[in-house]
Amino acid sequence: MKRFTDVHSLHALPDALQEALALKADPWAHASFGARKTLGLLFMNPSLRTRMSTQKAAALLGMDVMVLNAGSDSWTLETRDGVVMDGGATEHIKEAAAVMGQYCDILGVRTFAGLQDRDADYREDVMESFIRYAGVPVISLESATRHPLQSFADLITIETTKKVARPRVVLTWAPHPKALPQAVANSFVEWMRHAEVDLVVTHPHGYELAPEFVDGVHVEYDQDAALDGADYVYAKNWSSYTSYGQILSSDRSWTVTEEKMRRTNNARFMHCLPVRRNMIVTDGVLDGPSSIVIEQAGNRVVSAQTVLLQMLKAMP
Amino acid sequence: MKRFTDVHSLHALPDALQEALALKADPWAHASFGARKTLGLLFMNPSLRTRMSTQKAAALLGMDVMVLNAGSDSWTLETRDGVVMDGGATEHIKEAAAVMGQYCDILGVRTFAGLQDRDADYREDVMESFIRYAGVPVISLESATRHPLQSFADLITIETTKKVARPRVVLTWAPHPKALPQAVANSFVEWMRHAEVDLVVTHPHGYELAPEFVDGVHVEYDQDAALDGADYVYAKNWSSYTSYGQILSSDRSWTVTEEKMRRTNNARFMHCLPVRRNMIVTDGVLDGPSSIVIEQAGNRVVSAQTVLLQMLKAMP
Amino acid sequence: MKRFTDVHSLHALPDALQEALALKADPWAHASFGARKTLGLLFMNPSLRTRMSTQKAAALLGMDVMVLNAGSDSWTLETRDGVVMDGGATEHIKEAAAVMGQYCDILGVRTFAGLQDRDADYREDVMESFIRYAGVPVISLESATRHPLQSFADLITIETTKKVARPRVVLTWAPHPKALPQAVANSFVEWMRHAEVDLVVTHPHGYELAPEFVDGVHVEYDQDAALDGADYVYAKNWSSYTSYGQILSSDRSWTVTEEKMRRTNNARFMHCLPVRRNMIVTDGVLDGPSSIVIEQAGNRVVSAQTVLLQMLKAMP
Repeated sequence: MKRFTDVHSLHALPDALQEALALKADPWAHASFGARKTLGLLFMNPSLRTRMSTQKAAALLGMDVMVLNAGSDSWTLETRDGVVMDGGATEHIKEAAAVMGQYCDILGVRTFAGLQDRDADYREDVMESFIRYAGVPVISLESATRHPLQSFADLITIETTKKVARPRVVLTWAPHPKALPQAVANSFVEWMRHAEVDLVVTHPHGYELAPEFVDGVHVEYDQDAALDGADYVYAKNWSSYTSYGQILSSDRSWTVTEEKMRRTNNARFMHCLPVRRNMIVTDGVLDGPSSIVIEQAGNRVVSAQTVLLQMLKAMP
Repeated sequence: MKRFTDVHSLHALPDALQEALALKADPWAHASFGARKTLGLLFMNPSLRTRMSTQKAAALLGMDVMVLNAGSDSWTLETRDGVVMDGGATEHIKEAAAVMGQYCDILGVRTFAGLQDRDADYREDVMESFIRYAGVPVISLESATRHPLQSFADLITIETTKKVARPRVVLTWAPHPKALPQAVANSFVEWMRHAEVDLVVTHPHGYELAPEFVDGVHVEYDQDAALDGADYVYAKNWSSYTSYGQILSSDRSWTVTEEKMRRTNNARFMHCLPVRRNMIVTDGVLDGPSSIVIEQAGNRVVSAQTVLLQMLKAMP
Repeated sequence: MKRFTDVHSLHALPDALQEALALKADPWAHASFGARKTLGLLFMNPSLRTRMSTQKAAALLGMDVMVLNAGSDSWTLETRDGVVMDGGATEHIKEAAAVMGQYCDILGVRTFAGLQDRDADYREDVMESFIRYAGVPVISLESATRHPLQSFADLITIETTKKVARPRVVLTWAPHPKALPQAVANSFVEWMRHAEVDLVVTHPHGYELAPEFVDGVHVEYDQDAALDGADYVYAKNWSSYTSYGQILSSDRSWTVTEEKMRRTNNARFMHCLPVRRNMIVTDGVLDGPSSIVIEQAGNRVVSAQTVLLQMLKAMP
């Protein structure tokens, strides 16, 4: 595996899921498999879960880890081709990626959507440049349009908690004070389409996700109707794809409440965190017995460890 | 031991002190006791000694360490209950603590006094929230009102350098250009009351420490009288507790000088560092033979290692 | 070896070079030589290569590493003697160095030229203070006037790629939008004078390097003449030494282009990185077959590992 950026990066999702469940049961089973291998983690924006869970996953495999915070620890990066670098950016991503590839056996890269230029974001310029120039396998720690380690952890969470063979999984938009990327929503849809679930996506008009992600997916504009009979409620805010990067609604009636959860089939509540309390979801739901957000965050170690192990196994 | 926040966290201070002295003599005696255990360190403000000494202590026990700088590396934290999170804070401490508890076996947390709201600071909202929600043992790396790893190191320093069975220990206020918390002073008093020392606290009027710390302690407003016959002079600035967070004096006559040190019983000079030279203490004292501030800082490794070892021993 | 700050720090450069080549061939040959030893790395400005390559070098020797970013992670440092510290700096370098020396067996320090006060920069106040007060061996991770780990890596790069016994090595100034230190250029000259090369330095008038570095070196003001027959072209910007810290030229005719490279003896192109594309060098040269900047950056691990190993060997 030379890259892990989306669900197609895994050769066989069912096999990867089985490996994940085995690692969850016995995290130290391959405690020295990564010995003498170095994982480099590059963060271009803040991170708690991704940072710590990926470090922990590497430790479980005996890998060394080096963390770099672009902009504070290191230099600012230029990503455009052919530019005369007479401005603020001090290093081109071509050199930064290639140099990090000299020091690390695997690189993890966290970038984010600028939310200004949709084409640029959806081309994934930064992540694809790293993959092109690093010379070593690259793991997406979230990119402009996807968050695959999160989605893999979400799948593991559903797989290990489901009470029915084919649960009804509802992804619902919820309000947020800032414009956020579509990455988590896109990726969740992408992975759920490969899972044994019935997926429903619900959001206000104007919040339709990119066609390459949702074409053929059941979209329901009535949140109440979507929640009826749900086994899992996955809440997430995202800004508009069609009016790119815009906040079109701050409608608090989309906040997930205890009352709304009563429409469901005793559903589990999920969120990738960090979560804005009483915007996305009420304290009552988040602190109540249906919430599995902490276990879900715990599964970030499992998804990262599975991906690292597969990459290590594929090395010469 | 589920928490280390004050002197009462240790079941028996004399036993802990003996363990500390043993570790100081043979730091690698338990070099793999912490194998496969992860220590997470969360810093909400800058730190040199605490950061490096705690990392080093963990390394001496074979633990893995993950460091997180809140605000730069990670998200900003909300600490209030029931709030609608539509402002700048992106994550509630309830989730942050619980998630870090998923990735770490022990958490160290460094927070600080806001110096605006005395009740909030003295309730220790942030530290207590971490302890409540983390689900794993928590070590205070300094909180709003205490700095227990420092005070434990101070005790070790006195124990290993004292020339009389019951030394006279003087904590003296000294001037500083910025308003500082009372944490180090509070904690030092708390620990010295459990030590075999005669404690005297001296400061200008208006700088009385909180009653729960100093009730019954010998307070002497005349610095010269306090220093007479001292075996240890511990200098520290703090802002007012009664006029909370205010600087009431910048009187340089309180600076510890060589002349003042001559009043003492050839006393050792101590400070927790970082220290403002020629404000708190003159170059002559700090660079002279009576200063033991560097050895004192070195003992921060010993106190942290002792606490980590006790926590590891208490794990199932 | 108590310090590594310049070419004279190595007792015998040829022996060190042989050790470097051996480590390059077999990086894990001393995989546990540094066990139970801690390397502390202090950065006072951003760093990618130095940070990661030195961490990697330490990992290859089994050392523990602790990284500290001054100013963000830690306190701001005062470096002047005798000052009343009533301003912004919270800790004097005397204590910071001595305390870090308590926690680490070797310290790496990265500082930089202020470019305001030439005498202060060339006295190397910060680096020399660390060396004086740390109490443990200190490695320069770049100082105000030298970058010895870079120059050692440059030498290794030339040694492992040269096609003639005594190559012609040309250090050429090139334009840059910001005022940069002379450290890389100074150090490169210093090391090349001890190497089996013919060194030529070329730059516009006013960019003469400090006499203690270039006295007796072949300086050629005509860049074309300098490049004729070159086996290596090492490009670098620096600000003026004589008009200290000033940018006297932004002449793009000094940019290294494919046309200019055709004047050479099929020369290899080198740069310490990060490099401003199409200011220092064109995309065509940097992305072409003559560029060895990535391998050069890779050799930063080798130079750091060699220095660490020599320091470890010299320990009691």
